[in-house]
Amino acid sequence: MNDFADRIDAIRGDFPILEQRIGGRPLIYLDNGATTQMPDAVLDALAAHYRTDNANVHRGIHTLSERSTAAFERARRTVQRFVNAAESDEIVFTGGTTDAINMAARAWEERVGPGSTIAVTALEHHANLVPWQQLCKRTGARFEVIPLTPQGDIDLEALETVLRSQKVSLVAVAHVSNVLGSVNPVREIAAMAHERGTCVLVDAAQSVRHEIVNVQDADCDFLCFSGHKMLGPAGIGVLYGKRELLAELSPVRFGGEMVDKVSFAETTFEKPPLRFEAGTPNYPGAIALAAAIGYIESAGRDKIASYEHELTAYAERALGSIDGLHVLGDPARRAGCLSFTVDDVHPFDLATFMDKQGVALRSGNQCAQPLLHEVYGVQNVTRLSPAFYNTHVEIDSCVELLGRTVALLRAAR
Amino acid sequence: MNDFADRIDAIRGDFPILEQRIGGRPLIYLDNGATTQMPDAVLDALAAHYRTDNANVHRGIHTLSERSTAAFERARRTVQRFVNAAESDEIVFTGGTTDAINMAARAWEERVGPGSTIAVTALEHHANLVPWQQLCKRTGARFEVIPLTPQGDIDLEALETVLRSQKVSLVAVAHVSNVLGSVNPVREIAAMAHERGTCVLVDAAQSVRHEIVNVQDADCDFLCFSGHKMLGPAGIGVLYGKRELLAELSPVRFGGEMVDKVSFAETTFEKPPLRFEAGTPNYPGAIALAAAIGYIESAGRDKIASYEHELTAYAERALGSIDGLHVLGDPARRAGCLSFTVDDVHPFDLATFMDKQGVALRSGNQCAQPLLHEVYGVQNVTRLSPAFYNTHVEIDSCVELLGRTVALLRAAR
Repeated sequence: MNDFADRIDAIRGDFPILEQRIGGRPLIYLDNGATTQMPDAVLDALAAHYRTDNANVHRGIHTLSERSTAAFERARRTVQRFVNAAESDEIVFTGGTTDAINMAARAWEERVGPGSTIAVTALEHHANLVPWQQLCKRTGARFEVIPLTPQGDIDLEALETVLRSQKVSLVAVAHVSNVLGSVNPVREIAAMAHERGTCVLVDAAQSVRHEIVNVQDADCDFLCFSGHKMLGPAGIGVLYGKRELLAELSPVRFGGEMVDKVSFAETTFEKPPLRFEAGTPNYPGAIALAAAIGYIESAGRDKIASYEHELTAYAERALGSIDGLHVLGDPARRAGCLSFTVDDVHPFDLATFMDKQGVALRSGNQCAQPLLHEVYGVQNVTRLSPAFYNTHVEIDSCVELLGRTVALLRAAR
Repeated sequence: MNDFADRIDAIRGDFPILEQRIGGRPLIYLDNGATTQMPDAVLDALAAHYRTDNANVHRGIHTLSERSTAAFERARRTVQRFVNAAESDEIVFTGGTTDAINMAARAWEERVGPGSTIAVTALEHHANLVPWQQLCKRTGARFEVIPLTPQGDIDLEALETVLRSQKVSLVAVAHVSNVLGSVNPVREIAAMAHERGTCVLVDAAQSVRHEIVNVQDADCDFLCFSGHKMLGPAGIGVLYGKRELLAELSPVRFGGEMVDKVSFAETTFEKPPLRFEAGTPNYPGAIALAAAIGYIESAGRDKIASYEHELTAYAERALGSIDGLHVLGDPARRAGCLSFTVDDVHPFDLATFMDKQGVALRSGNQCAQPLLHEVYGVQNVTRLSPAFYNTHVEIDSCVELLGRTVALLRAAR
């Protein structure tokens, strides 16, 4: 047990949005898998930049521009350190995880064609599935989906068979499933893939806050994540790529600052990471993301992780008290979220009634239609995703209200 | 003469960044063509959203998500009204102008090939040149550059000849040049183009604050602009596209919220604008952009435009007092910026010494290498771009300091 329980009031004080009532009851925000809330320290950093140092980056020969550029490049080094990348040049700022994956998939187009395979797993979010599926449609490459075990873990034997029997160019895999919360063995997957010369892209959107994401340890080739799922702003994200890989890839978007020489006849490009950052980047977003990393590190990243795991496990045990409630999957390790169905109760009704009692849960297909429809045979689920500013008391309240709401909805049928 | 002169102190009070000293002298910020500063009202709107209503959009069935979605879609309607689009569905939020143009150019790929032409003008920013140049390289389409008149206006006769003699699929043109400040007749260009069935994309990055951008009046097919050049944040921009055109185009990035049905086998897509907004959009950026529009409208958009034009013209006249200073171009109408060279003085030296005296100018190739190198035969220029929070006194100071600095640098040769 770590010391979060003692510090929770102070921590919650950093997140003013949590101190409000919805439907006459205190807000219980358990939709952190979609968006985490932002501590005042991050907003303050953003405001300070706009109020004292703001100017475009990499362009001007004047003090504000130099300050702005320095802060932006400092943010790149903060991200580098946070994910333990070898070089800051391996950090490309993007608009978010989806944007980062799309950039990688577009850049990968020159590497695939008929005869090669792109593999994803059956638990991927649409963001790490549709870009690859569409890449395969454009290029004639084969699109292979690695199945799950009955528990909801990735079937590594099936992956091994695919790697052995096909020319797999890249495996795209989530570090943590946004539906099941399963933690995937990305290090093991990368090792298996590399043995066959296959690259690995890790979608770390759901893990970057919970897990200690370490790109050198995982030895992944790409890793993507978003600011808004780790206390930072929306509109900023990161594409990590191994230096030698980024250097080989052609840029996919074009404009100011990513070019070297431009003439009407032809254009040569900057080195990475600038090559992949066309136009004015979201430098205030990057600076705020660095502030979010600062907040996470001062709270203690390992403490956040263990507290959130504990809250999730606590919620899972408590949900067991509700008759006819089924949590999806039983993976070897679960982090940060879980999804469930309830017999005879529609997830939309459940979320609507829970909201009226102040509880924010996520109901829907969780941007993972193939996983829900084709693996679990359900249309929609309800997801509960705690963050480190949530409390055991909130989980207790949520589960109690869930139990009562389920009974009410069943009685009304 | 409008009433800005009377209100200028109050207006400057809204921009705390302006109240600082650089090199012991009051900051004179004249790099607004790169990034405008943000009034406190916009920062306050951003902070208020994060502190009371923040949640992911279009996803949750809970109060915060509904509030966040409502604010985001309200921002879309604010932008629609601001550019006078017929429908809010014609407004796609992007990461900025460069991002918007890249999205359009990528979507246009299915429309061009050998035998078709993409035309740009010789004064385009890299952002509205390189994406089209590279599209032509990928598809075998012809890349045609429309020349300028000796005054720096687009040669409409040359455009007419190209439109008549080639199968031009699209003309990409800046509304206002980021180097010359020339205001281009986009309405006339659109009319000429449409006569031949050619589409027109307008880069309004430099005009959206100065000119009354009116997409229905201009009758352009696409129009792109950025938040950070109109008092809003970096990391947000807009791609306007005519409804029927957006409906015909395939999406180019994939992920959550832009899909309709997803299976492992195939995916169908949402209608525009969601089809073009893969993943979590920069909804706080859009909300802040709407607040910036609110600020601009309450200051008076036409008043801002005429005051900035007047300041630019005033600066141009004043610069005439400096011997050997040459302003690029003499276009029919200039808005918001002008660029110049000075005999025997390197622009980098000039900007560096001006910065030491508190004046922020932009020196470099202005992301328009072909215009500078191939049209004007210069490597770099210095740009002065005022905003409505600048004053005549600042222009006087700037020109006086420029004159002294030029003399000093020449003496030191």
